[in-house]
Amino acid sequence: MKKKKKPVKKVKKIIRKKPKPVKKELTAEERIALANKPGQDAMKLHPFFKGKIQIAPKCVIRDFKDFAIWYTPGVAKPCLDIKANPEKVWEHTNRANTIAVLTDGTRVLGLGDIGPEASLPVMEGKGLLFKYLGGVDVYPIAIRTKDPDEFIKFAKLMEPSFGGYNLEDIEQPKCFRILDTLRKEMNIPVWHDDQQGTAAVTVAGLINALKIVGKDPKKVRVGMIGAGAAGIACLRVMVTYGIDPAKVVMTDIYGIVHKNRPDFDKHFEYTKELMLKTNLEDRKCERVEDAIPKTMEGMDVVIGYSKPGPDTIKKEWIQRMAKDPILFVCANPVPEIWPWEAKAAGAKIVATGRSDFPNQVNNSLGFPGIFRGTLDVNARTITDEMCIAAAVELAKVAEDRGLREDYLIPTMDDWEVFPREAVAVGMKAIEQGVARITMTKEQLYKKASSIIKNARNMSKALMKQGFIPKPPKD
Amino acid sequence: MKKKKKPVKKVKKIIRKKPKPVKKELTAEERIALANKPGQDAMKLHPFFKGKIQIAPKCVIRDFKDFAIWYTPGVAKPCLDIKANPEKVWEHTNRANTIAVLTDGTRVLGLGDIGPEASLPVMEGKGLLFKYLGGVDVYPIAIRTKDPDEFIKFAKLMEPSFGGYNLEDIEQPKCFRILDTLRKEMNIPVWHDDQQGTAAVTVAGLINALKIVGKDPKKVRVGMIGAGAAGIACLRVMVTYGIDPAKVVMTDIYGIVHKNRPDFDKHFEYTKELMLKTNLEDRKCERVEDAIPKTMEGMDVVIGYSKPGPDTIKKEWIQRMAKDPILFVCANPVPEIWPWEAKAAGAKIVATGRSDFPNQVNNSLGFPGIFRGTLDVNARTITDEMCIAAAVELAKVAEDRGLREDYLIPTMDDWEVFPREAVAVGMKAIEQGVARITMTKEQLYKKASSIIKNARNMSKALMKQGFIPKPPKD
Repeated sequence: MKKKKKPVKKVKKIIRKKPKPVKKELTAEERIALANKPGQDAMKLHPFFKGKIQIAPKCVIRDFKDFAIWYTPGVAKPCLDIKANPEKVWEHTNRANTIAVLTDGTRVLGLGDIGPEASLPVMEGKGLLFKYLGGVDVYPIAIRTKDPDEFIKFAKLMEPSFGGYNLEDIEQPKCFRILDTLRKEMNIPVWHDDQQGTAAVTVAGLINALKIVGKDPKKVRVGMIGAGAAGIACLRVMVTYGIDPAKVVMTDIYGIVHKNRPDFDKHFEYTKELMLKTNLEDRKCERVEDAIPKTMEGMDVVIGYSKPGPDTIKKEWIQRMAKDPILFVCANPVPEIWPWEAKAAGAKIVATGRSDFPNQVNNSLGFPGIFRGTLDVNARTITDEMCIAAAVELAKVAEDRGLREDYLIPTMDDWEVFPREAVAVGMKAIEQGVARITMTKEQLYKKASSIIKNARNMSKALMKQGFIPKPPKD
Repeated sequence: MKKKKKPVKKVKKIIRKKPKPVKKELTAEERIALANKPGQDAMKLHPFFKGKIQIAPKCVIRDFKDFAIWYTPGVAKPCLDIKANPEKVWEHTNRANTIAVLTDGTRVLGLGDIGPEASLPVMEGKGLLFKYLGGVDVYPIAIRTKDPDEFIKFAKLMEPSFGGYNLEDIEQPKCFRILDTLRKEMNIPVWHDDQQGTAAVTVAGLINALKIVGKDPKKVRVGMIGAGAAGIACLRVMVTYGIDPAKVVMTDIYGIVHKNRPDFDKHFEYTKELMLKTNLEDRKCERVEDAIPKTMEGMDVVIGYSKPGPDTIKKEWIQRMAKDPILFVCANPVPEIWPWEAKAAGAKIVATGRSDFPNQVNNSLGFPGIFRGTLDVNARTITDEMCIAAAVELAKVAEDRGLREDYLIPTMDDWEVFPREAVAVGMKAIEQGVARITMTKEQLYKKASSIIKNARNMSKALMKQGFIPKPPKD
């Protein structure tokens, strides 16, 4: 919003100070104690609050006569108005601000297929983040099926009630087909946060990392470890952003991905077109255990969305990367290599998925602002270009604060992130002709920030006044 | 809660004063102006508020670190706890207080099949009533299908996310099969408000009407005009309450219902068993236009859930009823006969569906309290006996206030209605063994009233503090 995009060569000047030293490894006990605290608190506080979100009125109830307006007989008029003019549903209801967080519970966090009931705490948590950070109203819905066709059918049936869907924690490969089918066949935006959300935030970090080392996105060579939902979506969005896919080499647990791999058609059924554009040098290796080092060789950037470390990536492999190596080691809960080890091996910049290290690639920086902008212009879809607009804006927020090797991306408590992303996303939707509502940048900023502020202040007021009770002390 | 049930003979003494004179018919202009006002306000205020309900947090957010409890990594613990102990979903999430208001939009209010989008304003309105009157969190979901099997499939798929379903505005006959199938095949309460909700409130009114005229429910003869979802559900619940079905005669638009009617099997496919118990005198008539007067002949009570009047029931037909005739003329928006005409023809007691006449049979007196009690004991179903417990308690509230011919049932602004119903319903669920939680009457009253009070006070606070904006002046 506020600063113009700066050319790459000038960026180094805005690095505001030396990076902080990366923390040393904690003792085993310290690490365990630290890692267990949120879980312990969660087990106490979940049963205390019995749920993370609830319904509140959005309209006035001055007295009981108002129910004749909000319900029968008055409500018949808006109903008939929608019947006659279907687009009026966006005016007469909260549909334009309501999305479903929809899951089958088949790949919840790193816990695997724990089923729909057990996934509910995550889905409610996502709803809480959506409201608090983005002012978006979420109904978390976990369904009892593992059949992708049933999932698709279900999602299409309830389209009339929602302004969008956030798909969540669905295992691959079905998540690709579900997302692609729903994006094609529905008139509301459908988003799989584990794909597009992760991609948006990763690309934001990558943009700034390349600025810091002064490399050109078009020329950069990228090794990608892991070809799951997140990795493949990152690749797609990176390519749309301007990374040359020919210079990307990807590996999965079966080895480096190249078009002659016997399982290529089977494993990349839904992503074949994209994968065929990668690895034009036809890099390969004999033994599967060489796939990761071979993928990393000579690369400017390595992006890992693979299996938890800390030894998935070895120090010596980093030493064989290009000058000023950039590493996104995003496996959870333990990155593919500990950041201090990567640094010691010569990595210039290291990002992880964890909040206790610098440069956290955190989806919560993406979806609330992206949906805010999407809903504010009532967009029919979220294109990859809208994703990139969000990434670029997110990168700019960090740049405005002052880039450093250990500050590539803003943190979740940086309020401005969300309305600024919303504006970038909404304006891109208008430009691409997928928005139902047109407005100026200024109007959009005003709308987005007022909705987000209202959500946050409302939350604070409910706490302050005891409508949300105080939890017991430890 | 507070008074013991009184024997029928004593009741006349508690009639506190003479009934108010029933209003005379308004002029056509006055009636039209009055009838149009809520609709006019609705057309102004719906687009102003853009929705009637929204999401609010239910848990504390003290700072951004709390998201490590409500979302990853802390949330993994409650997820795994539910995976290991499925019943913990009721402790760790808001499922126990969350229901879906679910419709296909095929019979919305009196507007017919207007489709899912156009039904949304009604569903959101229902959500608002549920929260404000009963403290129940509702996700309104309108789906795009007219196929009852798809509807059933859809409803079953999302069972893991909800504590219950309120089916709404589904056309008959499919509403019977949908309700019956879901009640059988699901482990959460499924309720069709147009059936059970209407029945509960009608039976409450009937209980008090019979008290006033001093007639015994077991001996009373009842004529029922209309055999739609509401009428048939009323019949079923009345019979469970103690009305003798042999003494009931029902008519629909094809004539008086008797077992030899050629279309009997077709029309009463889902309700055959019940219908065969009615009309044991085998009352019938040659001409379909005589069906209503013939049904009413000699009856103590006539209950109409048929087509809008005012000439569906004629004065002279009332004159041929038994002594002290009781009429429930509940067609909307215009009752089968205007109350002043019914009174002039000798009706002792007249109830309608309208708020502008005395004795409004209003579903909003039922569902919020009934679901409050059901959810508070985490019941697996809502039995007809729970419905009747609500009806009896609702009748008692009116009795406590002082029964009159024009005060059979409390009004929606009588706060105590809802927690008292909740207690009656919850205790009945415990007694019948369908509750997952057991508690005392006192505990239940405390729980229900604190949840309802919190919902109401929260709504007021959000208005007072401007989180819900003031609407523009007329």
